[in-house]
Amino acid sequence: MSEARVKFVLDEREIPTHWVNLMTDLPGEAPPPLHPGTKQPAGPDDLSPIFPMALILQEVSSEPEIEIPEPVREAYKLWRPTPLYRAWRLERELDTPAHIYYKYEGASPPGSHKPNTAIAQAYENARAGIRGLTTETGAGQWGSALAFACSLFGLECEVFMVGSSYDQKPYRRSMMQTWGATVHRSPSTLTDSGRAQQAHPTGSLGIAISEAVEVASARADTNYALGSVLNHVLLHQTVIGQEAAAQMDMAGEQPDVVVGCVGGGSNFAGLSFPFVRRVLRGEAKMRFLAAEPSACPTLTRGTYRYDFGDTAGLTPLMPMYTLGHDFVPPPVHAGGLRYHGDAPMLCGLVRAGVVEARAYRQNETFAAAVRFARSEGIIPAPEPAHAIRAVIEEADAAREAGEPRVILFGLCGHGNFDLAAYDAYLAGELEDPEFSEQDMDEALAALPPAPAIA
Amino acid sequence: MSEARVKFVLDEREIPTHWVNLMTDLPGEAPPPLHPGTKQPAGPDDLSPIFPMALILQEVSSEPEIEIPEPVREAYKLWRPTPLYRAWRLERELDTPAHIYYKYEGASPPGSHKPNTAIAQAYENARAGIRGLTTETGAGQWGSALAFACSLFGLECEVFMVGSSYDQKPYRRSMMQTWGATVHRSPSTLTDSGRAQQAHPTGSLGIAISEAVEVASARADTNYALGSVLNHVLLHQTVIGQEAAAQMDMAGEQPDVVVGCVGGGSNFAGLSFPFVRRVLRGEAKMRFLAAEPSACPTLTRGTYRYDFGDTAGLTPLMPMYTLGHDFVPPPVHAGGLRYHGDAPMLCGLVRAGVVEARAYRQNETFAAAVRFARSEGIIPAPEPAHAIRAVIEEADAAREAGEPRVILFGLCGHGNFDLAAYDAYLAGELEDPEFSEQDMDEALAALPPAPAIA
Repeated sequence: MSEARVKFVLDEREIPTHWVNLMTDLPGEAPPPLHPGTKQPAGPDDLSPIFPMALILQEVSSEPEIEIPEPVREAYKLWRPTPLYRAWRLERELDTPAHIYYKYEGASPPGSHKPNTAIAQAYENARAGIRGLTTETGAGQWGSALAFACSLFGLECEVFMVGSSYDQKPYRRSMMQTWGATVHRSPSTLTDSGRAQQAHPTGSLGIAISEAVEVASARADTNYALGSVLNHVLLHQTVIGQEAAAQMDMAGEQPDVVVGCVGGGSNFAGLSFPFVRRVLRGEAKMRFLAAEPSACPTLTRGTYRYDFGDTAGLTPLMPMYTLGHDFVPPPVHAGGLRYHGDAPMLCGLVRAGVVEARAYRQNETFAAAVRFARSEGIIPAPEPAHAIRAVIEEADAAREAGEPRVILFGLCGHGNFDLAAYDAYLAGELEDPEFSEQDMDEALAALPPAPAIA
Repeated sequence: MSEARVKFVLDEREIPTHWVNLMTDLPGEAPPPLHPGTKQPAGPDDLSPIFPMALILQEVSSEPEIEIPEPVREAYKLWRPTPLYRAWRLERELDTPAHIYYKYEGASPPGSHKPNTAIAQAYENARAGIRGLTTETGAGQWGSALAFACSLFGLECEVFMVGSSYDQKPYRRSMMQTWGATVHRSPSTLTDSGRAQQAHPTGSLGIAISEAVEVASARADTNYALGSVLNHVLLHQTVIGQEAAAQMDMAGEQPDVVVGCVGGGSNFAGLSFPFVRRVLRGEAKMRFLAAEPSACPTLTRGTYRYDFGDTAGLTPLMPMYTLGHDFVPPPVHAGGLRYHGDAPMLCGLVRAGVVEARAYRQNETFAAAVRFARSEGIIPAPEPAHAIRAVIEEADAAREAGEPRVILFGLCGHGNFDLAAYDAYLAGELEDPEFSEQDMDEALAALPPAPAIA
């Protein structure tokens, strides 16, 4: 064991020079997003009021690789490349012949993978002469990442934070403010969208999105930034998988299965897409496993069709697995996984059978997280706890089959801001909600009329 | 700038193989600790009821280097080597010709430098057949580190947490519990020391130490672990400075001044001692600057003499700068710096003029920390914010003198668990206590009778 390497580190000069645009590799033709009013394919111009053209061009790009601007790579150096770990201690704990590796994104200042795209978005907006960005945040990971990124590029940052989170997670709010951001409790009285929702004081992600988009639309010098789902967001995250691929080469192994948790899909895409490209191009064979909460089982129980990205129906209609755009998931602690749909690119891969999905209950994910923390040390965020739960299942299967299996998973954030949830779990007081048949009926009834997908 | 390196990383095979024992390099003869009862020099046997012999031998060792056991190096690999950063963005923000480097210890799972010694102590206790460790914790950094270390070596861990912190910082408690530790609110009813203090329900570090020592003394299979002050604790931390020295070589520069915050002294010693050795041996010239809080200014205003390490007077008398063993510092947020004395080895260096000390007010340290967070990204813990304040002073002096100056400082932990303090600072509601003349008079009156130091 003393010869065995625990951690594979890269020098900052090995930060990828390009992002991987998987769009060109996807099987079949991708259904276009539709304008919410006309239901006709939405073009770049429909996005220009709230996004800079450089990001819109990335959103619709058909280039297989897109160069990472040098100032973005410079900012990445503040924490990238991130380490890849061999989970020797977890393997012993699980008594498995599987080799388990994890890519750790919690080393970033905000503590997750989110700044990979926040940095890229802040840079392009600053370069376009934009003065400030607005966004929404639920649990606070995305808002923190954007506040951090804006502080590096001299942009103002205005975050609409879901009311219940604003009250319950004051430390995430303080973190954003420390980086200089302004944080509004949503629904606020600053926007029409907020004023119309004063009867729902706890707020929702949908309301917060509406407020942020409304402010960005109304001000010429202000844009909006989204932390997942869109093509350019997934694109920016592919630095994760490219680094992981180089580090797996250092370890002298290739993954048999790549595992990640899925909310909107940016973490999963970031780790897996560089490997998916190899598979789609016939250069490698491996499985891809998406782990989601049973309380919000979009990929395992959702319907594949056009739906809105937000609750209010202001965004383009996107082709995706959805539980209905006005479905409000139960308040599981994996706040980053509480989204009614998923990134269209990822949904296409699930539909094509390239990516498989499994759903897990909240308590079993926390049990997996505690097992991980007591063997590997790092306390995971509740979101990647879903990936760990899936990894344990894979490791157990390897032992039962008596076969070696190389598992790579994404540990996309630490749980330093989620310890109240661990507290509840350890006290046996954590709820264990599941998506019900009644939820499904209500979801289906609420789906908007939209063209069918071929 | 695109060619310039931001981060200097080492491979895990470059984790130091030995700790640096500065004891043999110190100028003059070190005054021995004294038995609290007899006031005669305390020997190894006086410590054996609560420490394993391997650590006691390290405590009194006259070997210049002590080999790091392989299982300790293996555990270090979970986060070591830690990165050294060139603070380009802070330099620009300060408009200084100085080159600023920082060694970041917040990458460890508990978020500070503390596990460097927690791992070493847990290992030696496990090897000696001990079943569990007790300790005290104030703000929770040390308790978290020991809980983490015990989880890796299969030891039980029992932490007496100062009552007021237990109530105000539930997340640090949850963190310890997630790693499997048992956390008691101190004063508890489990010990004589605790039962005698039920009239002081908010507790104190002194009471918590007494409880932890009492439990360890009473059980044959249980030992006690201390997170700072003692020689062997400082010894274990010297991995920091050895790595930093190798990384400064990579950067092609040598520090003109090494800066760190001081509570008990283990962080400062860990970074500086490998450099201090070079200076004491005439191999290099540089300054060493210890930053402490004005609210607890041990090195700048304390008296150098024998005093107890704890409030109750149960520990050996140690030669140190002290504000009096029953001085209770005001509740500044840098909980790790609220100690009435300092490590004897460090005090000897201050007395010899090798290390200089400066004290800073709470608000100016938070101002420095926010400036750092908005340029470098990482939000510092309140303790290293004192070092950052001193660094800004050095950087300003370099600009005024129009001279280059290479500054190396220790960023010994992140501030993820201290955001309530940032909140108070940003709201202008942070108190700014200072040690008063009356405090000094009371401190001097409370000093115990003890032999003079030559």
